[in-house]
Amino acid sequence: SVGALGSQSSFSQLSRLSPCKFPLQDVLEAQQFDRKLLNSIFEVAREMEDIERDAAGSELLKGFLMATLFYEPSTRTRLSFESAMKRLGGEVLTTENAREFSSAAKGETLEDTIRTVEGYSDIIVLRHFESGAAKKAANTANIPIINAGDGPGQHPTQALLDMYTIKREIGHLDNIRVGLVGDLANGRTVRSLAYLLAKYDGVKIYFVAPDVVKMKDDIKDHLTDSGVDWEESTDLMEVASKCDVIYQTRIQRERFGDRIDLYNAARGKYIVDTKVMNVLPKHAVVLHPLPRLDEITVEVDSDPRAAYFRQAKNGLHIRMALLKLLLLGY
Amino acid sequence: SVGALGSQSSFSQLSRLSPCKFPLQDVLEAQQFDRKLLNSIFEVAREMEDIERDAAGSELLKGFLMATLFYEPSTRTRLSFESAMKRLGGEVLTTENAREFSSAAKGETLEDTIRTVEGYSDIIVLRHFESGAAKKAANTANIPIINAGDGPGQHPTQALLDMYTIKREIGHLDNIRVGLVGDLANGRTVRSLAYLLAKYDGVKIYFVAPDVVKMKDDIKDHLTDSGVDWEESTDLMEVASKCDVIYQTRIQRERFGDRIDLYNAARGKYIVDTKVMNVLPKHAVVLHPLPRLDEITVEVDSDPRAAYFRQAKNGLHIRMALLKLLLLGY
Amino acid sequence: SVGALGSQSSFSQLSRLSPCKFPLQDVLEAQQFDRKLLNSIFEVAREMEDIERDAAGSELLKGFLMATLFYEPSTRTRLSFESAMKRLGGEVLTTENAREFSSAAKGETLEDTIRTVEGYSDIIVLRHFESGAAKKAANTANIPIINAGDGPGQHPTQALLDMYTIKREIGHLDNIRVGLVGDLANGRTVRSLAYLLAKYDGVKIYFVAPDVVKMKDDIKDHLTDSGVDWEESTDLMEVASKCDVIYQTRIQRERFGDRIDLYNAARGKYIVDTKVMNVLPKHAVVLHPLPRLDEITVEVDSDPRAAYFRQAKNGLHIRMALLKLLLLGY
Repeated sequence: SVGALGSQSSFSQLSRLSPCKFPLQDVLEAQQFDRKLLNSIFEVAREMEDIERDAAGSELLKGFLMATLFYEPSTRTRLSFESAMKRLGGEVLTTENAREFSSAAKGETLEDTIRTVEGYSDIIVLRHFESGAAKKAANTANIPIINAGDGPGQHPTQALLDMYTIKREIGHLDNIRVGLVGDLANGRTVRSLAYLLAKYDGVKIYFVAPDVVKMKDDIKDHLTDSGVDWEESTDLMEVASKCDVIYQTRIQRERFGDRIDLYNAARGKYIVDTKVMNVLPKHAVVLHPLPRLDEITVEVDSDPRAAYFRQAKNGLHIRMALLKLLLLGY
Repeated sequence: SVGALGSQSSFSQLSRLSPCKFPLQDVLEAQQFDRKLLNSIFEVAREMEDIERDAAGSELLKGFLMATLFYEPSTRTRLSFESAMKRLGGEVLTTENAREFSSAAKGETLEDTIRTVEGYSDIIVLRHFESGAAKKAANTANIPIINAGDGPGQHPTQALLDMYTIKREIGHLDNIRVGLVGDLANGRTVRSLAYLLAKYDGVKIYFVAPDVVKMKDDIKDHLTDSGVDWEESTDLMEVASKCDVIYQTRIQRERFGDRIDLYNAARGKYIVDTKVMNVLPKHAVVLHPLPRLDEITVEVDSDPRAAYFRQAKNGLHIRMALLKLLLLGY
Repeated sequence: SVGALGSQSSFSQLSRLSPCKFPLQDVLEAQQFDRKLLNSIFEVAREMEDIERDAAGSELLKGFLMATLFYEPSTRTRLSFESAMKRLGGEVLTTENAREFSSAAKGETLEDTIRTVEGYSDIIVLRHFESGAAKKAANTANIPIINAGDGPGQHPTQALLDMYTIKREIGHLDNIRVGLVGDLANGRTVRSLAYLLAKYDGVKIYFVAPDVVKMKDDIKDHLTDSGVDWEESTDLMEVASKCDVIYQTRIQRERFGDRIDLYNAARGKYIVDTKVMNVLPKHAVVLHPLPRLDEITVEVDSDPRAAYFRQAKNGLHIRMALLKLLLLGY
């Protein structure tokens, strides 16, 4: 955002000098995070687990108001942010479908909407259908903006919760082997995850994708430049037998247009089922950004290594941590 | 639900031994309630009247978060539950139209959605378009589920508030005469009400319905088996003159398809108007689950025996009671 | 509303005798406000600025529940009211699209809906598509109703915030010159503003509108009757050079039907741009009810005399004041 919290700018100027200030004013893209920052966020997220478990309820963010400004619906992400705010004692203003309902329909610019909504709230969680919308909002706003997904662009809190889940489940982020499976061409979660993994040492990445949705060259080049060892494979069983983490993703039908034949071929190609679980190391885990169709079979759910619902829950703790850090600092 | 409240399972194990534990983990269907349980809920609902009237606001459920997961809209029911939670100091996450907006549209199963949402909340109020959805959710969830209507299936909190209203208005549930009027074939409220009335002694039920929407045999058989005296009548005036309670219902147009002629005939047949009120005993009351069209004329509203808006308000107290009992016990 | 706050009627009876009672039970239309009442509301709105700035959060309306019953979407107005309620420690029940979702779709009357919703809340903010709906609701309800816009009818809180903004920005409401620009035929905000300005002394109003959307005679006659000096002009530059306030409005495309040619002609006719700002007096301000399209160019935003985003924020304080006054009195 442009400056510090509107009415509290003198306070924020001061605290900017202190070691307790969170270095970011907004959460816009995965590129904002380095190892040190990621680790500090993960520590706060861990503390949030205790706060969330406490039946009495936290009052850490009492008096703060978060606006969830969603230009496209995403119930899961919205509920996760709103739960995070309420678990910390904060309050929420909701717009579930700002695109259809708001003055956007009358032709108002995003900037004007942001200038109005920032007058009603202390932090804005923005979901938008256009890449770059979150940055545009942050350039306008005097309060923090969190990008909750901007079209084909970024979804940084998903990337953070994915990394946090690996840390929580495996115990470390250096020296891990990760298999990224499914739609690697269109999935922004796997792209962000690969990008963030490149900040750690000794990481090995396997790409397992149907031909039509292979990982694109920009990420491969970035990994190579960062010294990350990666390879493509067509053998999920072999990859699973060697990995600490299998990150499965949904093949998105909407990406295939009329080519239902291609969709069906891609969709059935790499399924995580009990056979895959049988070769997966005992300490390893299966992740998935959800929603899941049949790319992970339901039998797998009862396996303790199926970590995708814990991963969704970790999203709550990551978002609690970010709300706390952006509004109060460390 | 599967077990006790996730993070508090050891506590719940303990309290299961105590006399203060509410015997239900979920509220799914009218069949879960016997006389003793009904009466204990009604006592708590009565206490809730005082709590709700208290301007200072209760903090009984402070720190608890309820998710209203509505796969079809029902503003009345949703607001009633959300008001109940907030009157007790709890917080709410809302999805007004989960079917259209959520990841359900991408093909996620109800079970997966529940597993995610239970990570964000302490209790889920589910409205669904499919019969049996609430049971399915409860089989998955580790937190309490309240069925707020599952399609043609059950709507148990409506049944409870109907019974509670009769208790509040008439003073007792044994030895009462109830006229069920209107669409008895499709209305799930009258079916549940008949079912619950059968648990009391000396009950007499009159069915007054147009031919096309008569009460079905399964309920009649159940009443007979339970020793409840019932009869069908085509004379609303005569029934009204003998009853303690007239329970009027809306003829639902959507049940008649193209047969508008049948709908119009059925709709105009049994109207509660001032003529009916003139023969209704002084102590008797008229109930209606609302919304009301013209099956009760507006002139009736000012009659003190018109209890349908008090009935709607009783829904608030019943839902406060259930939230309290499921989350805290007696 | 019919009487005082349902459960607190004896208290309200008492306080009706005290000088601290707010004289209105509902906020329905601009005609309810005289100079004395406006000034007293503006004083409370000013206090609300401090309360809103206080990070700890107010608990003035703790325990109170506001229902926002919106039969047509208006995200801006809804968020403003909900923020107002939450900034004062109150709670909110929301229906973003009551027309489509509620039992209204099944044919329930507004009166029946109000009778139900008043059982769940302490105050209702109603947005409706039909002129007169707010009055109808107030005639039914036993709790306060605030009209948040009823179709082509009234939108009194917008009128109040417009007046308050002039007071805040210019310092006084007597002896001011105001240019009303844009769609003066259909805009209910300019009509209400002209009506309220007529209550002050020495006011001069300039109407600057394309031919097809000129101010109607009823308002002109009222101004003349009230002794307000007014004139029509086609020269925005000349008017701007003489005014304390330029109130620009959007030409609403939906008012022109198929006549896109007329719309385009009207739309481009009077634009507030840097040239207009160059002739505007130093102490003067530009207002706009928002949303804004291109009738004020973006370059104007950085001019300190561009007051329209401050005006939106003032709406928050006015609504906080009204909620406080209707629920607690002065």
